[in-house]
Amino acid sequence: MHKLRVAIVGASGYSGEELLRLLLAHPNLELTCITSRQEAGKPAGAVFPRYRECQLRFIQPDVDQIAAQADLAFLALPHGLANEYAAPLLQRGLKVIDISADFRLRSLEKYARYYQSEHPAPELLQEAVYGLPEYYRQDIRQARLVACPGCYPTSVLLPTLPLLKVALVETGGIEAFSMSGVTGAGRKLAAPFLFPECNESLRPYAITGHRHLPEIEQELALAAGVKELHINFLPHLVPVNRGIHSTILMQAKNEKAGEQALECLQQAYQNEPFVRVLGKGELADTKNVTMTNYCEIGCAYDPHTGKVILSSAVDNLSKGAAGQALQNLNIMAGWPEDCGLR
Amino acid sequence: MHKLRVAIVGASGYSGEELLRLLLAHPNLELTCITSRQEAGKPAGAVFPRYRECQLRFIQPDVDQIAAQADLAFLALPHGLANEYAAPLLQRGLKVIDISADFRLRSLEKYARYYQSEHPAPELLQEAVYGLPEYYRQDIRQARLVACPGCYPTSVLLPTLPLLKVALVETGGIEAFSMSGVTGAGRKLAAPFLFPECNESLRPYAITGHRHLPEIEQELALAAGVKELHINFLPHLVPVNRGIHSTILMQAKNEKAGEQALECLQQAYQNEPFVRVLGKGELADTKNVTMTNYCEIGCAYDPHTGKVILSSAVDNLSKGAAGQALQNLNIMAGWPEDCGLR
Amino acid sequence: MHKLRVAIVGASGYSGEELLRLLLAHPNLELTCITSRQEAGKPAGAVFPRYRECQLRFIQPDVDQIAAQADLAFLALPHGLANEYAAPLLQRGLKVIDISADFRLRSLEKYARYYQSEHPAPELLQEAVYGLPEYYRQDIRQARLVACPGCYPTSVLLPTLPLLKVALVETGGIEAFSMSGVTGAGRKLAAPFLFPECNESLRPYAITGHRHLPEIEQELALAAGVKELHINFLPHLVPVNRGIHSTILMQAKNEKAGEQALECLQQAYQNEPFVRVLGKGELADTKNVTMTNYCEIGCAYDPHTGKVILSSAVDNLSKGAAGQALQNLNIMAGWPEDCGLR
Amino acid sequence: MHKLRVAIVGASGYSGEELLRLLLAHPNLELTCITSRQEAGKPAGAVFPRYRECQLRFIQPDVDQIAAQADLAFLALPHGLANEYAAPLLQRGLKVIDISADFRLRSLEKYARYYQSEHPAPELLQEAVYGLPEYYRQDIRQARLVACPGCYPTSVLLPTLPLLKVALVETGGIEAFSMSGVTGAGRKLAAPFLFPECNESLRPYAITGHRHLPEIEQELALAAGVKELHINFLPHLVPVNRGIHSTILMQAKNEKAGEQALECLQQAYQNEPFVRVLGKGELADTKNVTMTNYCEIGCAYDPHTGKVILSSAVDNLSKGAAGQALQNLNIMAGWPEDCGLR
Repeated sequence: MHKLRVAIVGASGYSGEELLRLLLAHPNLELTCITSRQEAGKPAGAVFPRYRECQLRFIQPDVDQIAAQADLAFLALPHGLANEYAAPLLQRGLKVIDISADFRLRSLEKYARYYQSEHPAPELLQEAVYGLPEYYRQDIRQARLVACPGCYPTSVLLPTLPLLKVALVETGGIEAFSMSGVTGAGRKLAAPFLFPECNESLRPYAITGHRHLPEIEQELALAAGVKELHINFLPHLVPVNRGIHSTILMQAKNEKAGEQALECLQQAYQNEPFVRVLGKGELADTKNVTMTNYCEIGCAYDPHTGKVILSSAVDNLSKGAAGQALQNLNIMAGWPEDCGLR
Repeated sequence: MHKLRVAIVGASGYSGEELLRLLLAHPNLELTCITSRQEAGKPAGAVFPRYRECQLRFIQPDVDQIAAQADLAFLALPHGLANEYAAPLLQRGLKVIDISADFRLRSLEKYARYYQSEHPAPELLQEAVYGLPEYYRQDIRQARLVACPGCYPTSVLLPTLPLLKVALVETGGIEAFSMSGVTGAGRKLAAPFLFPECNESLRPYAITGHRHLPEIEQELALAAGVKELHINFLPHLVPVNRGIHSTILMQAKNEKAGEQALECLQQAYQNEPFVRVLGKGELADTKNVTMTNYCEIGCAYDPHTGKVILSSAVDNLSKGAAGQALQNLNIMAGWPEDCGLR
Repeated sequence: MHKLRVAIVGASGYSGEELLRLLLAHPNLELTCITSRQEAGKPAGAVFPRYRECQLRFIQPDVDQIAAQADLAFLALPHGLANEYAAPLLQRGLKVIDISADFRLRSLEKYARYYQSEHPAPELLQEAVYGLPEYYRQDIRQARLVACPGCYPTSVLLPTLPLLKVALVETGGIEAFSMSGVTGAGRKLAAPFLFPECNESLRPYAITGHRHLPEIEQELALAAGVKELHINFLPHLVPVNRGIHSTILMQAKNEKAGEQALECLQQAYQNEPFVRVLGKGELADTKNVTMTNYCEIGCAYDPHTGKVILSSAVDNLSKGAAGQALQNLNIMAGWPEDCGLR
Repeated sequence: MHKLRVAIVGASGYSGEELLRLLLAHPNLELTCITSRQEAGKPAGAVFPRYRECQLRFIQPDVDQIAAQADLAFLALPHGLANEYAAPLLQRGLKVIDISADFRLRSLEKYARYYQSEHPAPELLQEAVYGLPEYYRQDIRQARLVACPGCYPTSVLLPTLPLLKVALVETGGIEAFSMSGVTGAGRKLAAPFLFPECNESLRPYAITGHRHLPEIEQELALAAGVKELHINFLPHLVPVNRGIHSTILMQAKNEKAGEQALECLQQAYQNEPFVRVLGKGELADTKNVTMTNYCEIGCAYDPHTGKVILSSAVDNLSKGAAGQALQNLNIMAGWPEDCGLR
């Protein structure tokens, strides 16, 4: 069988490394090209000693070179570079799966507000598909350009969307408390991410305007069929390497609705390969999903306040980034969705 | 000066160990007696090698022996033993500072519901004082029996009470999301607390009926001047040794009220020795308070949802248990409140 | 193709869980049976929520039942049970790969001394093969009974055996300093393994007679062609989940020999699928091998003392236990040695 | 009483922060001045939120300003700056306690070799006193310039010096295996010290020429009364914040000598306020000494190899740096040696 040739553009961060891990093990793919400005020239194993056996070398992120070597490119770049990579790669006939935030928001205004710069490629926004397979599978199948969801949004949307779609819960007063491992911050050389600063530290950050907030609100509003919807999204940094846990509160429409929530989730996801809805009384634990592409979801109803309490766990680098990106690729290529992901 | 003789009843757990640390260093105290059923006969240093130089030996928790050696007893026992220790020690003339949950709830009915047994000493409930110095200092001064607040309640009440007292926020819809280090579970030999089960794990537990919930609700209702009040309290276990962080959402009465919240907290605590209200934009981090008796509080207003977002950090073993117990003792004895706590 | 049916006897510990992970993913195997006294009756996913999708249930470890369902059994049991499981399973025609210590030592006297009981099945000792594939591959191919090396011995033997075999180093004065993650202690409910007791703790243990000492000495002596040889083996417990790192000192025969050591290792392992000899100046890091079956080896010569300094890293549960067990199975079955191990 | 005025020059690193903690709590001192090039102008609490109540501001490290405000200066600077700070401060009449490496080595040649530059102030070397109180107390009392030992040397020298002094052990073949927490690397912005790179990682570094090696060898040779002596010193980085553990092997002169080693240590340190020699069979654990100025020492004899096996634990920032610096100050000032250190 002819293998699909893929490139990772911006492969020297944690998401890039996780993509490397997954793509090297995928039976239908040939990873032909990994780029990195600062690591160009070095073999993969010199940057990621885990993958010492990998023969690839980092190259400079030159669009023509990438296009010459690959049929599809994963972009694991900072946001804001869409016109430098996504646009020209599409033009050269590649498909693009973007792990950055450039094509997640439908509103140019919100992009500009939350990312503090004009959108780099507004002409592509229309065609970009939000890469949450459980909700956009049909569109992903045809897509040339997929915008992979953020790690936090993945952990918040999967447990909440089914309940909003069937209106078991109110659209107001949704609160999402999330905890993330430190790889979520990327491989950033900044004092707050040094080991002694993170270890034995529990801290919130960006509690009133995290960049994942408008992304979450956009998808919640779409599911609820409302124009706009506001939530509190409260991210916390905690001393683990991998994993995001979200606990989400939603007001049940009424007691009966609250008690139906768990069953609603179980039905919604019964055929999904990567969503595990836990049994009654069970709660999500990141430990059970790290290094996998699963999202684990627990659901309880609290009659004392009328809230549905959701707990979800994903690996921020896998289902929250590289794993989901590969799941999207499998869909685009018409392969089994879990190919290379077990 | 004649030193006050004190005993720690149930000194072999983490709170007991922290009390040992603090009491040994206190200039006005003589720690005369430490008890433990399972460690009786052993020197303190054999159980806690950090305190190898301590000459005390654990004894069996015999009420007469304790009474013969101490003027005041700290009870660091499981709940439910009030009639075995608190009652007879008070009868023998000792003062008692109870770190267990026995005297925290004013309602016998709630005690029975949440602790699944009848209250062991209802006749003492009336006189017990809730040992949150910032709110009950006057009563603590005269008290014979002080019920130290739970670790989670301390972290939730200190940031919220001032706002409820002056009605800047609604009494409905309060949500407290807390993360605790593993010493919060005590020195319990159970699989979920083994190192490999906690490390790299993020997980909620007891999200719909934790024993600290009625305690928090009781004090919130008192501060708000309402009969009853319901909140969601969502505890999580995270891989640190010490520290509790709580992020709390309260609905501001209106935008102006929301924007006044930080100043309200700053005023409320300006003379408090152990409450630090952070500046605008700052958020609490457990790393800054571990091994201290401080509670650190951050406050933000989110105009996008109208919520006041509070973040607080305490050391669960210090301000959340032993440190606060000692702060109470200092008050009872008429000493400077921070004596032995810097 | 007919799949080989395998059983895991004693599957509820950390090594059992790792075997479960590997065997479920192996293309040529059917895992038919997992046993556990204390978990019998429960589905695999109830004990190991990571493997929630696994349909197997734990059964009681009944020899006849195991024999009825499997062609080969992995024993992940405490030592001392050889006559209860290994012997009767062999008798019933199964092959056995034993992860316990029962068949590692050739000397009954040393077994009795270090394990403080008589050997449970001395009649089988003769035929048992030490399952270190890099050295016993030929024998493993024919074996009915394989004794998998201990985790520490694997990490100490792989870097040292090649140098002893060609006599680049002295047989006297070998020192092995090892650090192990806490899963190395098993899922033991004991206070020293609670999270708060391990986190932020660095400690040696069993420094003068660890049970892995005679096993290491036995294989070193065989490689060196001497009758007896004594080393210092110094294990330490450190706060990571997985991983063993060993730093080993050996006296070079002379300066030239010392400088040849790295090349000797590179040659010895150039065709080995799971041994990585690092380049000059590189040192082993457990982070690069966790969740893999690799042993990573660094080698330096210190002219200032004449010592060869070896550093090695393995995942204690994988190359140190379950992964190596599966590597042995692959050899026994005539499959590619890395089948199911990438 | 007139308080001694002290300055911390280079106060923005981890050792500086620990000095801040200790000096603020010391009853006889007034901390008047803290310097930092990059933090100049900021209040102490803005850099170290734990010490939010501290009113000091960082200033630029100007020698005249420091001299105007302090009687004694702690230098917590990188090595190589002795002629910029130590020399001119001494000239202006201050006493200096240097935590850097500049005055630890007596040999200019070794300084140049291991620190790769000429010694910055050779004229002061003669008068500098090595600040290991247990061995140089008399000289420290009179000293103007004290060179605080490195963290690793402290942990290696305290257990070994007594045995060399009375010649119970050979001077050849000494091996020291050490593990250090990540604060030992300083607050350095480098990828290897990011949380995800350290967590779940065990790794050696600088195993053939660490800068603490000649310092250790110098003091061992002095104790042994030999001109030169070579050891292997093998440092490892492990995921804890604080703490150094060293396991050291020394060849006993004979069996009787080996068995006397523990008693020799117990006698040597029986009156030392900060050295704890453990009982027979006990081993050092960093957990017992973090946040204290203790060095904990265990000692065993292994008749099977004839080695004395020492284990020691210190807090790298306390007894390994700031605590020991303060212990030296107490000696210089004629105060009780443990003043401010309990």
